[in-house]
Amino acid sequence: MSDPTFLTIAEAAQLIKARKLSPVELTQACIAKTKRLDNVLCAYVELTEDLALAAARAAEAEIAAGGWKGPLHGIPIGLKDIYDTAGTRTTGHSRLLATRVPDQDATTVTKLRQAGSVITGKLGTFEFAIGGPSFDILTPPARNPWNPDHTTGGSSSGSGAAVAAGLVLCAMGTDTGGSIRGPSALCGLSGIKPTYGLLSRKGILPLSQSLDHAGPMCWTSEDCALMMQALAGHDPGDPASAQVPIPDYAAEIGKPVQGLRIGVIRHFHETDNPATPEVLAALEEAIKVLTGLGCEVVDVTLPPLADFAAVGVTIMASEAFAIHEKTLKASPELYGEFGRDRITMGAFFTAADYVAAGYKRRELAARVAEVMKTVDVLMTVGSPFPAQPIDGVPKYLFFRTPSLTMPFNVTGLPALCVAMGFSSTGLPLSMQLVGKAFAEPVLFGLGDAYEKATPWKSRRPAMALAA
Amino acid sequence: MSDPTFLTIAEAAQLIKARKLSPVELTQACIAKTKRLDNVLCAYVELTEDLALAAARAAEAEIAAGGWKGPLHGIPIGLKDIYDTAGTRTTGHSRLLATRVPDQDATTVTKLRQAGSVITGKLGTFEFAIGGPSFDILTPPARNPWNPDHTTGGSSSGSGAAVAAGLVLCAMGTDTGGSIRGPSALCGLSGIKPTYGLLSRKGILPLSQSLDHAGPMCWTSEDCALMMQALAGHDPGDPASAQVPIPDYAAEIGKPVQGLRIGVIRHFHETDNPATPEVLAALEEAIKVLTGLGCEVVDVTLPPLADFAAVGVTIMASEAFAIHEKTLKASPELYGEFGRDRITMGAFFTAADYVAAGYKRRELAARVAEVMKTVDVLMTVGSPFPAQPIDGVPKYLFFRTPSLTMPFNVTGLPALCVAMGFSSTGLPLSMQLVGKAFAEPVLFGLGDAYEKATPWKSRRPAMALAA
Repeated sequence: MSDPTFLTIAEAAQLIKARKLSPVELTQACIAKTKRLDNVLCAYVELTEDLALAAARAAEAEIAAGGWKGPLHGIPIGLKDIYDTAGTRTTGHSRLLATRVPDQDATTVTKLRQAGSVITGKLGTFEFAIGGPSFDILTPPARNPWNPDHTTGGSSSGSGAAVAAGLVLCAMGTDTGGSIRGPSALCGLSGIKPTYGLLSRKGILPLSQSLDHAGPMCWTSEDCALMMQALAGHDPGDPASAQVPIPDYAAEIGKPVQGLRIGVIRHFHETDNPATPEVLAALEEAIKVLTGLGCEVVDVTLPPLADFAAVGVTIMASEAFAIHEKTLKASPELYGEFGRDRITMGAFFTAADYVAAGYKRRELAARVAEVMKTVDVLMTVGSPFPAQPIDGVPKYLFFRTPSLTMPFNVTGLPALCVAMGFSSTGLPLSMQLVGKAFAEPVLFGLGDAYEKATPWKSRRPAMALAA
Repeated sequence: MSDPTFLTIAEAAQLIKARKLSPVELTQACIAKTKRLDNVLCAYVELTEDLALAAARAAEAEIAAGGWKGPLHGIPIGLKDIYDTAGTRTTGHSRLLATRVPDQDATTVTKLRQAGSVITGKLGTFEFAIGGPSFDILTPPARNPWNPDHTTGGSSSGSGAAVAAGLVLCAMGTDTGGSIRGPSALCGLSGIKPTYGLLSRKGILPLSQSLDHAGPMCWTSEDCALMMQALAGHDPGDPASAQVPIPDYAAEIGKPVQGLRIGVIRHFHETDNPATPEVLAALEEAIKVLTGLGCEVVDVTLPPLADFAAVGVTIMASEAFAIHEKTLKASPELYGEFGRDRITMGAFFTAADYVAAGYKRRELAARVAEVMKTVDVLMTVGSPFPAQPIDGVPKYLFFRTPSLTMPFNVTGLPALCVAMGFSSTGLPLSMQLVGKAFAEPVLFGLGDAYEKATPWKSRRPAMALAA
């Protein structure tokens, strides 16, 4: 095995199960690559090398003894540094929590450990999942392995960089307005924001409880399905946790997608927040591929993107400010500028603004649900542009430009970003596929079919290829 | 039958079923009494005499044809004037809606009609269920039949007066912070604020959607059970509507209550919001009666009443202001002073205040749920004092004094007020019994046992006795 770090989870799992790949060697390869690249990429806040190797050795011994636990057994996985890890500090990438060591794992981390995965450490984020990319916080911001002068998007920034570069085979992110899908889109990954309430947020630093989602960021849609199988399940420790049957998330992997009805929300990416011509052209190519696979592609109209943005920003900023108000008043100087100023936006909203946003949210969700009765999947772009230079991200971008990802935090519907080629400058482009509530398997099947019908998944960042 | 208007629903239903009581004569008796008393009581915003008599005649014909529908068939019932009635104006007791005629019934009204009941008209409230008792709104405030110089409490004011005086056998109220229980307590009724989400609020003017509850106000606990049977059920038109099995609400009526564990929340009514000595003495007497019936009465401690009040007031005022903000800005002069000034309190809360109140609410609910694992029922007073003079109610009372009813809007637990005797001045006193979520039958059984063990239900307001 020359470079196992670019295996998918599905591939690595088969080799590990067959004892043709050693979890220890795989983990060592990931660590070695991290040591080679992370002084540039800054994907990690903290690499927990010894713990990772110990977990890999334990997995190896279990598998050798005939105790293979499933596809995550022995797989190196990184965690956005807002996931609590017992005994390992969890900082939210903030100076405020630089020495905070939780005594319990987040529920999702417990599930990953139970599945036998190898937690490699804590990955960079925007400060408290909102303040970035910033140079005035705990550690420097993650850079894009496709071009390190560029951002990975945020806030699951380190997660995006780490998976694209093969520092891990998968990373956990969180998504309040697009923080899984943005970095997935800008780094060429497949990343899922699951249905609201499907994955527990217990033990994850909150940004905005009614919009926060946990989810995996992987190289392929199939890998997302494998991760979801380990992660999904009711958790009484998360007040929003749904009690729903857990399907086989890989049920549609490798299956025909013929007859699937896809509704393209053209006004989202063509007029409401226009994507670049290159992104628009790539989306049309992707639509042709999906049509060629037998999908029926139609146009659909949702409420204007700005309506979702207004609701999402009001709720997100208000809830974030409620969480941080006391600390912001006591220690404003310990926040980075972006985190402090963005969270402070929440101070400008009245209770009535927030309540009205909640009613509007319900109305928008009902209108989207009506449209979703006519199609299986909604489609728009994952990002209106490829990764931007890391020192040029406007502080208030999110408050000014209506986000293409936020509508599905507002509605809670599952949304998968899937790589759809590259810009002329070699940066990944991405589509966003949105499903009915709790219908993640349909999205994974569609993403998988598209990935297998296109060459994009065979390309990795040049800097991350074997030295 | 000398005066059928003082029959309970249970009694009247047996007579109607046996064709010993005519729904038309019963309705006529209620209307005649209304005409005799309502110039003083002001219970009605609008008596719909013709519609009531038509419904009574229809019921009579159905029953004569062997089509008795159940215990509400032919029973005169009044509606707080925030329940939408198709073709009959629904004003919220406000000049703003003086001519508003809905084209659909509220879901609960539909259910009452389906059960064959006779809707007699629209009963007075505080303006928009918050601004009262007021003399500067659509019609004068309801007065207490036990002493017309006194208030009935609010906001289901007309409902309280009408049932006590026998203008109807039951009335529908709503309860956001105590608006069913207050008038029930001050008028000597049995009134239930059911578990949050159990009764639909669709078609009821909202005050604060996350605290609003619909519920019946009757003379006895048994009648509350009969009403609940017709009213309960999931309604997709109310976003908060619960999907739960509907029990036999009368299952515990007439059953022994021996062994029931009752936790008295002494600090609520003894220190947090001290009741008058007369009320406290009556409560001790009631505890003795319940102990005599075989109940096990213990003391329990909940979080301080002020914590519930702070949460409840923040949420109620914020949500009310969100509903009224636009109209308040456009037409402040059309509100009465109490409604305008109380709703305006909601403008002072920030989004973060509201969000924080939501988290605190969840924490309080969890703490009460813990205590409720140790007992079957919680007990405190229904009101800390008997009815007050109608011209002396402080405008900001609710914002200043922590309400004894609000904790169960905040937690959503079912709460029943049951009459427990009279003050030295002849005004009703009341206890409040609180159950586990969706355990209304236990409350009705306990209320019924107490009512049958005490003489209070045999006494009616002197002014309302047959002329």
